[in-house]
Amino acid sequence: MGLVGAMNERFLKACRREAVDCTPVWFMRQAGRYMPEYQAIRAKHSILEVCKTPELAAQVTLQPIERFSLDAAIIFADLLLPLEPMGLRFDFEEGEGPVIHNPIRDRAAVERLRVVDGGELDYVADAIRQARRALAGRVPLIGFAGAPFTLASYAIEGGGSRHYIETKQFMYREPEAWHRLLDKLARVVTGYLRHQIQAGAQAVQVFDSWVGCLSPDDYAEYVLPHVRVIFDGLKHEGVPLIHFGTGTATLLRLMREAGGDVIGVDWRVHLDEAWEMIGHDAAIQGNLDPVVLFAPLHEIERRVEEILKRAAGRPGHIFNLGHGILPNTPVETVAATVELVHKLSQR
Amino acid sequence: MGLVGAMNERFLKACRREAVDCTPVWFMRQAGRYMPEYQAIRAKHSILEVCKTPELAAQVTLQPIERFSLDAAIIFADLLLPLEPMGLRFDFEEGEGPVIHNPIRDRAAVERLRVVDGGELDYVADAIRQARRALAGRVPLIGFAGAPFTLASYAIEGGGSRHYIETKQFMYREPEAWHRLLDKLARVVTGYLRHQIQAGAQAVQVFDSWVGCLSPDDYAEYVLPHVRVIFDGLKHEGVPLIHFGTGTATLLRLMREAGGDVIGVDWRVHLDEAWEMIGHDAAIQGNLDPVVLFAPLHEIERRVEEILKRAAGRPGHIFNLGHGILPNTPVETVAATVELVHKLSQR
Repeated sequence: MGLVGAMNERFLKACRREAVDCTPVWFMRQAGRYMPEYQAIRAKHSILEVCKTPELAAQVTLQPIERFSLDAAIIFADLLLPLEPMGLRFDFEEGEGPVIHNPIRDRAAVERLRVVDGGELDYVADAIRQARRALAGRVPLIGFAGAPFTLASYAIEGGGSRHYIETKQFMYREPEAWHRLLDKLARVVTGYLRHQIQAGAQAVQVFDSWVGCLSPDDYAEYVLPHVRVIFDGLKHEGVPLIHFGTGTATLLRLMREAGGDVIGVDWRVHLDEAWEMIGHDAAIQGNLDPVVLFAPLHEIERRVEEILKRAAGRPGHIFNLGHGILPNTPVETVAATVELVHKLSQR
Repeated sequence: MGLVGAMNERFLKACRREAVDCTPVWFMRQAGRYMPEYQAIRAKHSILEVCKTPELAAQVTLQPIERFSLDAAIIFADLLLPLEPMGLRFDFEEGEGPVIHNPIRDRAAVERLRVVDGGELDYVADAIRQARRALAGRVPLIGFAGAPFTLASYAIEGGGSRHYIETKQFMYREPEAWHRLLDKLARVVTGYLRHQIQAGAQAVQVFDSWVGCLSPDDYAEYVLPHVRVIFDGLKHEGVPLIHFGTGTATLLRLMREAGGDVIGVDWRVHLDEAWEMIGHDAAIQGNLDPVVLFAPLHEIERRVEEILKRAAGRPGHIFNLGHGILPNTPVETVAATVELVHKLSQR
């Protein structure tokens, strides 16, 4: 890698709970619809075209890095990509989110799913290599994948969901097929993330975005063992592993048990209380409500200060939102929030 | 009231944390789309027609009581009804939920809202009187209303929402107008519930269904004081007050502080841990995941047992779902679950 200047190590240090000069910050979906330069690319290319064209994916990955003082980049990709080589066909319908044309509704459909290795998603690895080169060591690059439950919920519902009725019904009525499905997903995700790390991802995040719809007992029984497979499978890869979900206030201990060096938490729980539940032998990432970025700056400042106060300068805090940046978020506010985090957390 | 036989007092006793022979059970939306007899009425009448025709509302209220051994009835009405005399115009679009045609987007719209007294919703009081007569003392009748935050979220978003962006934006950008709006809503809801009690409601439930989208700090600052107005205003009315929300694991202490003799909790939190947070000087209602009613009976039984085990026979537990019964829930399963709760909780 042709390094230009010193690498910004804040993010990786915080993942390892080492002291940093100020709190690192990055945002989920920091490359996204709220940015005019992203929209310019999307005017010419679909989401899947961007994902599958490493030059474009790398270019979009760098857009927020060029514009803001973020401490990490995250590869541009979509959670659903691994489902395609497994045998599911999907599209993104404008404003509607993903639509899977052959959702999983029975055991036979689970049996038909192929357990692919990361190789079938080489375009993501290529994008990672290109993004690493373009970043030239400025900030570390994060890889990511969906967690088995969240991927299963898309695969079974056929898209996003409000109540996850089909997903839970499958889980309750076909527990064996459910475990078989999550086992397949866990193995695919593990291989996919390993490929991302080998291609240059310097940390990886597992997104269990929708797991907060489950009771703690259902999480422990139907989900945790499969998430553990992923974290156990990656723990000797030498990069920090981030485990993220939303609505997880009552699942945090179990998520930590499943694995992850860093646990991501949303705004529904106080950061210090979440950290207490997770244990101080793990790092924590969060936890500003993404809608706060629509507030006036003095309100944002008040909330950033509160989060930093609850982190109490303890090594191992990575500032982030509790979920992805929303479309229509003002770009200036994103810039100002990054500056605020750095300024208010100066050691 | 022409009483026929002895009144089933289980529900009211449990609200007062008195000993009962077995755990009382009722379900939110127990009169609803999953029942063929409800669908038969709805084939001829819109939701609003049913709500505004006391004979029909009373008839629908009784439908689940005729069919199942439930321990309470809840008046059939819609959360949005009070918004109409306040000045908002809405419809229910099939499968889409409510649509408000003139959503609130600025302070002027808040100022225009009328603070009506319960009298303008006399059709609900009439329905309560008719339902009480038809129940003839078999089980108590619960009245209800939406909480200020949940009503405000509909009024501002113009319908249901995923991220509550408009609502929170209003809250953050126009805090004075926000407080004025919630104050108006709290006063209307208090008067409306008082009318319901005077008409014969033997308990009332305040639904803050969507409040779980807020951080604890935002709840404390923007919502709690207004909810307290309602509970303080009703505490001498002599009927149990139920305070319900979903996704509230981190808000339970604050909700209890705002008021309520009974706190409703969803399935995302263990019942015993929730009760600990609420304090054992309050009763608790919950907390089966409504999707569990789509599971095979042995799975339902396992979960009912677990909830009863966590309630540990302590007086003050009312069995309920963590949210309303979903459309397409099998009717036989609802019947079986009611029986299971009674059988497994025999003292």
